[in-house]
Amino acid sequence: MKRVIEQSFSVPYTYPVIFSENIFDAAEESLAKLLDNGKGGKAYFVVDSGVADTHPELIDQIKTYAAAHASKFKLCAEPLIVPGGEASKNDPQFYEKVVEATHLYGIDRHSYIVAIGGGAVLDMVGFAAAVSHRGIRLVRIPTTVLSQNDSAVGVKNGINSFGKKNYLGTFAPPYAVLNDFNFLLTLDDRDWRSGISEAIKVALIKDLDFFEWIEANASALAAREMAPMQELIVRCAQMHLDHIAGRDPFEMGSSRPLDFGHWAAHKMEHLSKYQIRHGEAVAMGIALDSTYSFLKGMITESELDRIISVIASLGFQLYHEVLSGEMLFKGLEEFREHLGGQLTIMLLTKLGVGQEVHEMDQTLILAAVEKLKAFQADRLIAN
Amino acid sequence: MKRVIEQSFSVPYTYPVIFSENIFDAAEESLAKLLDNGKGGKAYFVVDSGVADTHPELIDQIKTYAAAHASKFKLCAEPLIVPGGEASKNDPQFYEKVVEATHLYGIDRHSYIVAIGGGAVLDMVGFAAAVSHRGIRLVRIPTTVLSQNDSAVGVKNGINSFGKKNYLGTFAPPYAVLNDFNFLLTLDDRDWRSGISEAIKVALIKDLDFFEWIEANASALAAREMAPMQELIVRCAQMHLDHIAGRDPFEMGSSRPLDFGHWAAHKMEHLSKYQIRHGEAVAMGIALDSTYSFLKGMITESELDRIISVIASLGFQLYHEVLSGEMLFKGLEEFREHLGGQLTIMLLTKLGVGQEVHEMDQTLILAAVEKLKAFQADRLIAN
Repeated sequence: MKRVIEQSFSVPYTYPVIFSENIFDAAEESLAKLLDNGKGGKAYFVVDSGVADTHPELIDQIKTYAAAHASKFKLCAEPLIVPGGEASKNDPQFYEKVVEATHLYGIDRHSYIVAIGGGAVLDMVGFAAAVSHRGIRLVRIPTTVLSQNDSAVGVKNGINSFGKKNYLGTFAPPYAVLNDFNFLLTLDDRDWRSGISEAIKVALIKDLDFFEWIEANASALAAREMAPMQELIVRCAQMHLDHIAGRDPFEMGSSRPLDFGHWAAHKMEHLSKYQIRHGEAVAMGIALDSTYSFLKGMITESELDRIISVIASLGFQLYHEVLSGEMLFKGLEEFREHLGGQLTIMLLTKLGVGQEVHEMDQTLILAAVEKLKAFQADRLIAN
Repeated sequence: MKRVIEQSFSVPYTYPVIFSENIFDAAEESLAKLLDNGKGGKAYFVVDSGVADTHPELIDQIKTYAAAHASKFKLCAEPLIVPGGEASKNDPQFYEKVVEATHLYGIDRHSYIVAIGGGAVLDMVGFAAAVSHRGIRLVRIPTTVLSQNDSAVGVKNGINSFGKKNYLGTFAPPYAVLNDFNFLLTLDDRDWRSGISEAIKVALIKDLDFFEWIEANASALAAREMAPMQELIVRCAQMHLDHIAGRDPFEMGSSRPLDFGHWAAHKMEHLSKYQIRHGEAVAMGIALDSTYSFLKGMITESELDRIISVIASLGFQLYHEVLSGEMLFKGLEEFREHLGGQLTIMLLTKLGVGQEVHEMDQTLILAAVEKLKAFQADRLIAN
């Protein structure tokens, strides 16, 4: 007897991405409504230590907010504070703590985990939520430019393992994303700036208008004006959401166009022991792959100059010593391996137009690195 | 500024469920074709120790098969043997070993992990595959009746944690399922029988015809005839596949109709320290919830007799001492918690027709347990 049954189905996902302010004011109902499952939702908060330090009033605000909306949801335990940044993804104990909390406090699949913090903390908490009971509802409250316009609106989570970024993780859409722009006010300059690189990235590969808007607003953004930053975040988040919905949300193919500039970025972060922040690494990664695109004859020198110029005028470094040396090339293979299948790298053929290639020339990469070093030296002299 | 973007998309899944024999004969191409990703797929095999013990030739067969199909795929390491049964899910070291192997052997998202064994081993390997690189292709080769007709065709994986079954896991459809009926020939009687309980279950809640077919074939099945067993497996697998595709594949609601008889079964397995096998526990769980349905006035005594009769004539026990005592009730709360939301238990209103309820009466449960004890005593006297 031989027989084949072809199984086939689709799983629909929907989630709101809310842009707001003062979300813990008692009068602001967005969060309480999200956490109301009709029977008094149980909610467990996990907070990034960086956010808790900058906002010492936050834990009390959460409790006061919960008390004011007690008919909609209840806190099932004290909020848990975990280290901000890659530390939360590098040491598995924080992931394990969140998983253990779901057991200790009986947090079930119709309860909520609310993660407040930067992208790294949201990734770690998201992974714990995704595998406990095969998926507890996750409300992400991203607090950085990077997480508000990029990572937190997406469908991934993860922790680092074996020295590799995001080695363990799943694709798991959040229950909701709630952005509070006020968190941006207290970011240090590096974190304010960092997230802008993902907007430059998505603009460069998809949307010339958006790139030109960033060029025009670069000095206002560098001067920490809120109005253009809010516009940048919403526009960038929308492009990411459209991209995810448009094709292959769970990346079953080999292509990952939104990873323009990311192969080198991931490796640089690791080589610098995460002293370089993700957005900073992405800015250099974009500069590197744009320079490579120019050296390959795919974009013109004046196009390259505009890219380098906008990155530099936002205050990003263009070069870091970890870019030199053979170790960088390992990043290419690791990038291929993580995605699986064929090496697929996004380059540029115009401002606003990306093109995927399947090999990179090591000599040209080295030449691009040298060129970045020179750009950086020129900038230092110019300033 | 306040704004809401509603994200919405669907993720499509397809996978073949193949029923076959002699899958490691060089002439049988099914497996080699599955593992051919066009560039010589990398495959890593994980084998249930129970299967490796009963089939000492298997590891060599795998190697010979790989050599014969070297143009399609290659083994990236020696097959890994892991303990069969719940041991593989109770001790996290086996899950960690599989995850580590993906790192050591560079197994990427376009490579394959092939898991050969019973449902527990497939669950454990499936979880490791699902979280490494956010999902490596998993080919399941189930070797028991239970896994061929039920668990392996589905979309779940998991390991046990905090003393709770499947506490950690994901929803992750396999890349393919390849059943080889020959593995059934070497099952011990308990494992041969165990899987039949899932067929009784799905028949009782959905399909009177199928239930009557099982009644008619009970003695042939008990006598280990292969033809009716193959028919039972394909029919039961098809019903499970249809159910999954039909509604809520990833169980975002509170309802889980296929878990008829399972709330007590999960608890019994745990209370017996996994001395009772899953299928045996399910048989008793079905007997319990059918008896409860009768005591509740939902089915007639003659309907209950037919159910008890078919279960007993297949050689299942109807009662075990772990059913007595207060601990059983904890199973109800744990079942609710694992699924989340409201307690939802499937009962029967007719043979072939299930109905969900949202509460269970503890006094009636105790009365049902007593009745099962009496049924069991009657059977022992009758034999």
